[in-house]
Amino acid sequence: MPIVNISLYSGRTTEQKSKIAKAVTKAISESAGVNDSDTIVLFHDIEKTNWANAGNLVSEE
Amino acid sequence: MPIVNISLYSGRTTEQKSKIAKAVTKAISESAGVNDSDTIVLFHDIEKTNWANAGNLVSEE
Amino acid sequence: MPIVNISLYSGRTTEQKSKIAKAVTKAISESAGVNDSDTIVLFHDIEKTNWANAGNLVSEE
Amino acid sequence: MPIVNISLYSGRTTEQKSKIAKAVTKAISESAGVNDSDTIVLFHDIEKTNWANAGNLVSEE
Amino acid sequence: MPIVNISLYSGRTTEQKSKIAKAVTKAISESAGVNDSDTIVLFHDIEKTNWANAGNLVSEE
Amino acid sequence: MPIVNISLYSGRTTEQKSKIAKAVTKAISESAGVNDSDTIVLFHDIEKTNWANAGNLVSEE
Repeated sequence: MPIVNISLYSGRTTEQKSKIAKAVTKAISESAGVNDSDTIVLFHDIEKTNWANAGNLVSEE
Repeated sequence: MPIVNISLYSGRTTEQKSKIAKAVTKAISESAGVNDSDTIVLFHDIEKTNWANAGNLVSEE
Repeated sequence: MPIVNISLYSGRTTEQKSKIAKAVTKAISESAGVNDSDTIVLFHDIEKTNWANAGNLVSEE
Repeated sequence: MPIVNISLYSGRTTEQKSKIAKAVTKAISESAGVNDSDTIVLFHDIEKTNWANAGNLVSEE
Repeated sequence: MPIVNISLYSGRTTEQKSKIAKAVTKAISESAGVNDSDTIVLFHDIEKTNWANAGNLVSEE
Repeated sequence: MPIVNISLYSGRTTEQKSKIAKAVTKAISESAGVNDSDTIVLFHDIEKTNWANAGNLVSEE
């Protein structure tokens, strides 16, 4: 059941995402009492020209 | 009014999305009593390296 | 696989949502060649004090 | 930096969410090489009348 | 055209949201060259038991 | 604290997004009484083949 959307800067490798997906799914299973098979994780790669902190694009910092 | 966000695996053609958009908009109009012109549909193509089921990236399956 | 998020004004009945969910799922199955069991639909009821068109909250119109 | 949105059925306790938030944040820090302080987790409680699998509201199952 | 989703802590008044919606819509019109009527703003009130920074629910801080 | 997700047609320049991010962040700070440093803005560029109004992809209009 849980659906997890993770927005992060572009540039994470597939290997890093693989680790995150496994760890996040396990974390939710253990804490929420659901099966691993119930969890879906989606990654959204956000370019630094598309992400602003405090009003400034990260690409401008 | 209704705003519909659809996340699906990359690879669907524009023709398929066109059909989905038309059918989803019609389905909502008929069921919710709104005009077709009130509905917006956005597609989000998710790479299989960005989608995990049961803790495993689809690209790993 | 497809995950559908539908934002609409609060006030739709469970019966209306049931019809929308069935119709949207069927529409996607037929157009995208997936099984009904692959589609998840989530509704987000948005109060009219939380929805603005053209800069004006719907509750103000 | 990572922003995590988790949609799950209503009914999880604050204690469960607290555990999930801690575990998910730690999982991302370890796998993606970011600080805990960079991660934001948002939970979205979805009523079973607002969640459909395979075209059927969970409340109908 | 632009669709703006704003997640913030619960507790903002309708008057504050009204001001934000007007100002955000105007900001986008002036910067992106679209009409006010093209912009939709949706607010998502997130309880402090549903928002975690650095792994800690805001309600726990 | 506020997290702002803006979906718009692909094609806006980084300069336009920079202006929007600054203006939106300022608008929220002034209206909601938060610091600029609390606001995060994410842009989502949506291709016209992925955006449908009234059931028609914008690319088809």
